[in-house]
Amino acid sequence: MLIACMAAIGDVVVVAPDKPQSATGHAITINNTLYLNHISKEGDAIPEYSCSGTPVDCVKFAVNEILHRKPDLCVSGINHGSNSSINVIYSGTLSAAVEAGIEGIPAIGFSLRDYDWNADFSPTRSFVDTIARNVLENGLPPGVILNVNFPKLPESAIKGIRICRQAKAFWQEKFDKRTSPMGRDYYWLTGEFINLDKGEDTDEWALDNGYVSIVPVQFDLTAHHAIQELNTWKF
Amino acid sequence: MLIACMAAIGDVVVVAPDKPQSATGHAITINNTLYLNHISKEGDAIPEYSCSGTPVDCVKFAVNEILHRKPDLCVSGINHGSNSSINVIYSGTLSAAVEAGIEGIPAIGFSLRDYDWNADFSPTRSFVDTIARNVLENGLPPGVILNVNFPKLPESAIKGIRICRQAKAFWQEKFDKRTSPMGRDYYWLTGEFINLDKGEDTDEWALDNGYVSIVPVQFDLTAHHAIQELNTWKF
Repeated sequence: MLIACMAAIGDVVVVAPDKPQSATGHAITINNTLYLNHISKEGDAIPEYSCSGTPVDCVKFAVNEILHRKPDLCVSGINHGSNSSINVIYSGTLSAAVEAGIEGIPAIGFSLRDYDWNADFSPTRSFVDTIARNVLENGLPPGVILNVNFPKLPESAIKGIRICRQAKAFWQEKFDKRTSPMGRDYYWLTGEFINLDKGEDTDEWALDNGYVSIVPVQFDLTAHHAIQELNTWKF
Repeated sequence: MLIACMAAIGDVVVVAPDKPQSATGHAITINNTLYLNHISKEGDAIPEYSCSGTPVDCVKFAVNEILHRKPDLCVSGINHGSNSSINVIYSGTLSAAVEAGIEGIPAIGFSLRDYDWNADFSPTRSFVDTIARNVLENGLPPGVILNVNFPKLPESAIKGIRICRQAKAFWQEKFDKRTSPMGRDYYWLTGEFINLDKGEDTDEWALDNGYVSIVPVQFDLTAHHAIQELNTWKF
């Protein structure tokens, strides 16, 4: 879907991980070898590659070993499941966009708030097109990338686009403890998403109320507002 | 070193990954099973556990399956190698501290700017003690954790502690392409750290000039300053 959408705007090169990479965050591969596979065939309209690494590795490969230049735009997704709120930190999809941003490339991460394997991505199409064209036309402020999330709604029910802040929410973990056939205890990490942030300017509110959410995301993690207070500490 | 230092302040429980986790970022393990191993023996002063997952998984295990409560302080490290500037995003050490912060636990990530296997961690000791005690005494502003980096210097040469912002630096990647004995191309990800930020209020400046750097780090990634500009876009 995202590929078709981008192909209507410009020349597209696809670089994707060769296996699922859910919740890989901003991991990169430095203690292991990496493989790059050319998937598309001679004459195919869109060059496609797969990479044995993480989503962030894919961005590095694309820029340094495939394009040998910075592209005009990097899009990542569309992720199966929301990357709103604190999920931006755990998400491989968003981390790929953040990596592009670090390298000075305008970048957008797209996610659909629907975990169903049969999720319908078609309602997102016109929004993806509009947002990508806006980024190409206006550029993005330095050090900023976009985290776009779509509600699980038919296109006609989507009310529009909202520029939001990241909701202050978190995951309440629960480890599902089981015993293997060999008698060894093991765990699955599960959890419940808890949103105590009632602000109507958050991405969670926008999605709950039928809007596409766009959060501008930065990779300067400095809590500038805390510097003054820390300077009063006695070391 | 960090364990001994913390044991002088309070009761310590150690939970660490069971294998190297360099550059794992904020990855968590959701598509695989996890193992938790009790390493210490009955009667040992400090309970120690290892976990088959990432540094972030370790924090989740510690809170939910070992302590069954939030500790007063979470410390992570001391990492072998700097996590200053943009490295905060790639670092497993810092991501563990960020995870604790998300869960509302005061947290500090410590790193030493020395990649040598024989690196001397002893000059950091008094600073680790001072910083940890300050955090316990003063608390941290909500949504903030500390990224502490030590210069590679003897204790007598360290000039003091500086509260800093994250330097605007990045890695210039270079893939080292090789051929396996089976004739297949593979790559090692390498790179050069490029700091074009000349600010004297940055962590890189502090470390270059003989100071311990402390950057307050937040996990609200919203680029609040960009919201107004994005609201002028025509969707």
